[in-house]
Amino acid sequence: MTRAFTIVMAGGSGTRFWPLSRAHRPKQLLPLAGGTEPLLASTVRRATRVSAPEDVLVVTSERLSAATRAVLPGLPAENVLAEPIGRNTAPCIGWAASRIARVDPDAVCAVLPADHHIADEDEYARVLSVALDAAAHGDIVTVGIRPSRPETGYGYIEMGEPLGPEAHRARRFVEKPNRQRAEQFLAAGTFLWNSGMFFFRARTMLDAIRAHLPGLGATLDRLLAASPGDEARIIREAYPTLPDVSIDHGVMEKVRDVTVVPADFGWSDLGGFASAWELAERDARDNSAPEGAVLVDAEGCFARAPEGKLVALVGVRDLVVIDTEDALLVVPRDRAQDVKKVVDALRERGEEEHL
Amino acid sequence: MTRAFTIVMAGGSGTRFWPLSRAHRPKQLLPLAGGTEPLLASTVRRATRVSAPEDVLVVTSERLSAATRAVLPGLPAENVLAEPIGRNTAPCIGWAASRIARVDPDAVCAVLPADHHIADEDEYARVLSVALDAAAHGDIVTVGIRPSRPETGYGYIEMGEPLGPEAHRARRFVEKPNRQRAEQFLAAGTFLWNSGMFFFRARTMLDAIRAHLPGLGATLDRLLAASPGDEARIIREAYPTLPDVSIDHGVMEKVRDVTVVPADFGWSDLGGFASAWELAERDARDNSAPEGAVLVDAEGCFARAPEGKLVALVGVRDLVVIDTEDALLVVPRDRAQDVKKVVDALRERGEEEHL
Repeated sequence: MTRAFTIVMAGGSGTRFWPLSRAHRPKQLLPLAGGTEPLLASTVRRATRVSAPEDVLVVTSERLSAATRAVLPGLPAENVLAEPIGRNTAPCIGWAASRIARVDPDAVCAVLPADHHIADEDEYARVLSVALDAAAHGDIVTVGIRPSRPETGYGYIEMGEPLGPEAHRARRFVEKPNRQRAEQFLAAGTFLWNSGMFFFRARTMLDAIRAHLPGLGATLDRLLAASPGDEARIIREAYPTLPDVSIDHGVMEKVRDVTVVPADFGWSDLGGFASAWELAERDARDNSAPEGAVLVDAEGCFARAPEGKLVALVGVRDLVVIDTEDALLVVPRDRAQDVKKVVDALRERGEEEHL
Repeated sequence: MTRAFTIVMAGGSGTRFWPLSRAHRPKQLLPLAGGTEPLLASTVRRATRVSAPEDVLVVTSERLSAATRAVLPGLPAENVLAEPIGRNTAPCIGWAASRIARVDPDAVCAVLPADHHIADEDEYARVLSVALDAAAHGDIVTVGIRPSRPETGYGYIEMGEPLGPEAHRARRFVEKPNRQRAEQFLAAGTFLWNSGMFFFRARTMLDAIRAHLPGLGATLDRLLAASPGDEARIIREAYPTLPDVSIDHGVMEKVRDVTVVPADFGWSDLGGFASAWELAERDARDNSAPEGAVLVDAEGCFARAPEGKLVALVGVRDLVVIDTEDALLVVPRDRAQDVKKVVDALRERGEEEHL
């Protein structure tokens, strides 16, 4: 089989897990799916089912690079690429693809978000292999998740004609739909959730970027022509000038031939505390609370607190209670997305210490 | 006027304000009515409207005596009486009355609980003077609060014939009623809440104790006869042998002539977080929260947290959120009394460090 690299996108600074997640310790560095393994470490561990550890690249921000390396002790330090400034996913993937192309332009690459949860890791590894095989034929490939509900929080991919036992032509990418359209998509059976995973030969992606994002393409060509010692300087100089554009908008929606592999491996994007509650181990009354918590008539709650802190929930239902050393959040589970409003309020106040 | 002493009963270790209140820092040592003045300090400050500071005695437990003296810097240290073991209110009042009788057996005494809140302090001082005047005539006097609602959490006193412009014979003491009886009491207009405040000449109370609690009376006679240096030794020896009985059951319900003074000075026994919320300064949406809290669609909440901690409440209603260094409580305001269940659970588990 062709040599397979993995590019893990780990530059996120999501706010939906505040106050657990912070600017210096975002979602992917936290063990939000339970246990003690940070989401990023789980992603890299799963990636090693298809790539050797030295072939796993992790792209993050300069600010997070030390913490990122710290949770990935098995990865060569130079495999953590630190962006001097966040420029969305197209520059991130382009840089990593150029790094890979210097080693082997025909290598296939899997691009994986750092902060998703996968329940069935064997099926996941199998699907990655299918997608990488398809990518080896020269197409750009994506994995679409078979929807289980009319979710309005995700983008969708419509499947076109079949290209083999497990692959379809991607007819179109669709932005987050309203409820009615989401129900139509679910009923149609031909729409998949956009998982944000992409697969391609390094050469294929670089060509697509040259065609559709020529400014970024020129920078990548400089990187390809430079001596390895010049990479850091070029990145530092060029990054601020690069377009702030996603790979979806900048490339995927513009290339003609995208292949989509439908999949069902217990995928969750862990989009907030409600998802974390769904994934968490829960007691008979559906509570997920720290060890030693006192729960009296509590039901459906998700509580977290620093080690050694006693949490007592009495007569409350479907509540998210997140306690940290310096901040405490209480919000109903079905409004957990509104934590963004708290983060916005703190930003407005200039209270950087709590972000 | 006769010399007036005050006896403040400050041995309580209530659990209804857990986790703010703890075994080593109970309710009366906390500023639960707002501001920074502990309830006990407020009580002593108000007492000095009728008694000189050197005539205010505070009875507490040995365990709390240092903390008690610390919040009462204006009181002579020897005025804090430390019980070696809790024995309810009869021994507590008896000991303090014997201390006062050694100075002046004809002095009048006010007995005040340490942990109540008084909104109208001028009216309160006036009522205390009326009650002390009545006590100077030789009766035991109590103050009854005119009820404003059919409260089932208090004992009641039924007023009998008038004894003057502001005093009635107390016809009977009634235990906490059920809802139906409480409504009858409220409608009748002749029932008052038992405030737990008592007024008497030192000599009168000692005689009543000798008559109705002879075991306790004998100990008090030993104290009266002993040299002052022997008081501590006698207390330490005798206290464990004393009856565990309240002044209400042991004395008040047995003496024939009790006078009750009806009063209305904005009294609250601060029986739990719901009362604290009622007394607290609140915002336009009825929240009482720490400075700097982020409140998004929150209403009717009572939140407390250590200084510097950020509290964010989103989309929650009528919730009590009490955060401390080592414990966190979340409970609906109308179930705040159930915090006792948490304390019971911790006691059962033997988790003394959180009590």
